[in-house]
Amino acid sequence: MFSSITRPTLLLDRERVIDNIAFMAGKARDHGLIFRPHFKTHQSLEVGNWFRDFGVDRITVSSVTMAAYFASAGWSDITIAFPVNPRELDRTAELNDRIRLHLLLSHPGMAEAVHYKMNRPVGIFLELDTGDRRSGFDTEQPEIMERELNDISACSRLRFSGFLTHAGRTYRARNPEEVLSLHQVSLARLARIRERFLENRPEAIISLGDTPACSLAGDFSGADEMRPGNFVFYDLMQEQTGACQEDRIAVRLACPVVARYPERNEVVVYGGAIHLSKEQLAAENGRNIFGKVSTEEQGLFGPSLPGAFVERLSQEHGIIKLPESHRDAFPVGSLAGILPVHSCLTADCMKGYLGTDGKRLDHMQGNAYI
Amino acid sequence: MFSSITRPTLLLDRERVIDNIAFMAGKARDHGLIFRPHFKTHQSLEVGNWFRDFGVDRITVSSVTMAAYFASAGWSDITIAFPVNPRELDRTAELNDRIRLHLLLSHPGMAEAVHYKMNRPVGIFLELDTGDRRSGFDTEQPEIMERELNDISACSRLRFSGFLTHAGRTYRARNPEEVLSLHQVSLARLARIRERFLENRPEAIISLGDTPACSLAGDFSGADEMRPGNFVFYDLMQEQTGACQEDRIAVRLACPVVARYPERNEVVVYGGAIHLSKEQLAAENGRNIFGKVSTEEQGLFGPSLPGAFVERLSQEHGIIKLPESHRDAFPVGSLAGILPVHSCLTADCMKGYLGTDGKRLDHMQGNAYI
Repeated sequence: MFSSITRPTLLLDRERVIDNIAFMAGKARDHGLIFRPHFKTHQSLEVGNWFRDFGVDRITVSSVTMAAYFASAGWSDITIAFPVNPRELDRTAELNDRIRLHLLLSHPGMAEAVHYKMNRPVGIFLELDTGDRRSGFDTEQPEIMERELNDISACSRLRFSGFLTHAGRTYRARNPEEVLSLHQVSLARLARIRERFLENRPEAIISLGDTPACSLAGDFSGADEMRPGNFVFYDLMQEQTGACQEDRIAVRLACPVVARYPERNEVVVYGGAIHLSKEQLAAENGRNIFGKVSTEEQGLFGPSLPGAFVERLSQEHGIIKLPESHRDAFPVGSLAGILPVHSCLTADCMKGYLGTDGKRLDHMQGNAYI
Repeated sequence: MFSSITRPTLLLDRERVIDNIAFMAGKARDHGLIFRPHFKTHQSLEVGNWFRDFGVDRITVSSVTMAAYFASAGWSDITIAFPVNPRELDRTAELNDRIRLHLLLSHPGMAEAVHYKMNRPVGIFLELDTGDRRSGFDTEQPEIMERELNDISACSRLRFSGFLTHAGRTYRARNPEEVLSLHQVSLARLARIRERFLENRPEAIISLGDTPACSLAGDFSGADEMRPGNFVFYDLMQEQTGACQEDRIAVRLACPVVARYPERNEVVVYGGAIHLSKEQLAAENGRNIFGKVSTEEQGLFGPSLPGAFVERLSQEHGIIKLPESHRDAFPVGSLAGILPVHSCLTADCMKGYLGTDGKRLDHMQGNAYI
């Protein structure tokens, strides 16, 4: 099957994806959590359908565009886990006419504008910042949320869904202990929120979402819903946190080897920043890397070659540094299988998959909505 | 015009693009160089057409796919400045049947395979590595090139076009002196190549290509052709080398401001790693940044706000750090204009432009050629 590959191609191992979904769906079930997976990682209608076998009928996305993409395929209960965008409220309202939609208020003062634009009731989460300093209400300033909840109550078309947080800082953890310790900080903050705000609001929930904690933690007390996304593919960043082993990483960028420089233990592949993204990871060699590599001989989904790294990227070139002992591992004309640092970004660059069963799989198309 | 923008949109200032083309075309003319611009930065048929007014009829691209894209619009003399890909030779040969094509041999041993696959003569450049250690024959090992030239001579369908180099290390220079000093190293190496190999090959040329040296240098002695690409838009990386002033940067990513956090002098925009790319630059504040920012009030193409930086990116979030004095510069619902660190990658992420005259402009579409 690999013989038909002539250009950088994102391979997807369906069995690993299914295993990853089964693992996370089971984890949610075991902890009594609603499983509302984030679809921004795969952005694929076909991969999305695989979740239905696990009873999934509620999903998370990161843009109105992505919500519309999945709504077109029959998904009818969607949380847009991104601060509500005042410039897209007309389109958001249209979507809300068709499906059950939940939006995020992430800072004070937006409730009325959303209410005014909607034609019918919409779900509203307050986004919580439990320490990431990306977006959301600071959990240490509950009085500001109190006022926001009053604003929401005053708006007839806003239905309070609960509180939502994403502890994205766990993605940069270097081991499970770090992940779990950050997770405990989040849980403690969420517990205070629950105590203060949810006693008299039985319909409202608490939703959390980072893949490292959802993969590793055994304690989700105080949470009602999990929204991990990256776990569907995992990647090197997740492996570094301890959230997965390498053999659960379900995508590889197959890249033709186009040049060899044995005198510097390097090969050049067709596969660069526009295919892999420029996401970097501090590796065990003390340098920042853009990926690890497996050989065609090992089936591309085999274990990565120890000591081999994607060391530099330009627009379409990838430069792979090889250990002396394997300087001949990648003949010109063969394929290198690159394990991505960040699978969400690589998938978004590539805009489509080739399943290891030979079937092509969709990915939502470009950004050029102008 | 900006009022219609609801999502991240790549704005293009046509006048600046034309000025940039005029500048570089003039520079090539003044130095008696063939001007064969690299089209990988804009990847646009429409922007490509603007070059025709400056007499351009030969271009450079970075993939067979891109060559086919431009060939479809009538470009008939194209250099693919990327190591020849053995897995794409059938497609390359088809293209060579239709246009005047030049390929790169970047390491020993590929001549015969290319000859064997072509149906008619094809131009062949030997790629030179003048110090970048990306791809190409090491200029310090001329005997290896000597053998390669003999191989080429023995292949009836290979026509030796000359030597080609890309001194990409100038992109990381921090000032014009560094750029010029690296350029002089390249020129000295190219001079030795010319002396050794081109005395008896009057039809062969020497081609060089980096935007920083092409912008800044006054000496191109020994070169016959220039192939810069990035200059069409320029970007913050080029500004840092001194290759351009900020007011020549011709693209901006317009991003809706979706949240404000005045207590930490930050705003969040809809515009993240999938729109801007994760290319970083070490900025004057000592940190790595992902962009500078201008306000809608100043027309988005106005000067960047001093001390304001895109400091963090996730998939669709951009976090902009503001100076205390301008913490209110970006109201929620307004647009921020992000000056990209690397315009080639941002354009490739966005896959389309909105001209400041309101016209949409094409960009070659996705990578999903599977």
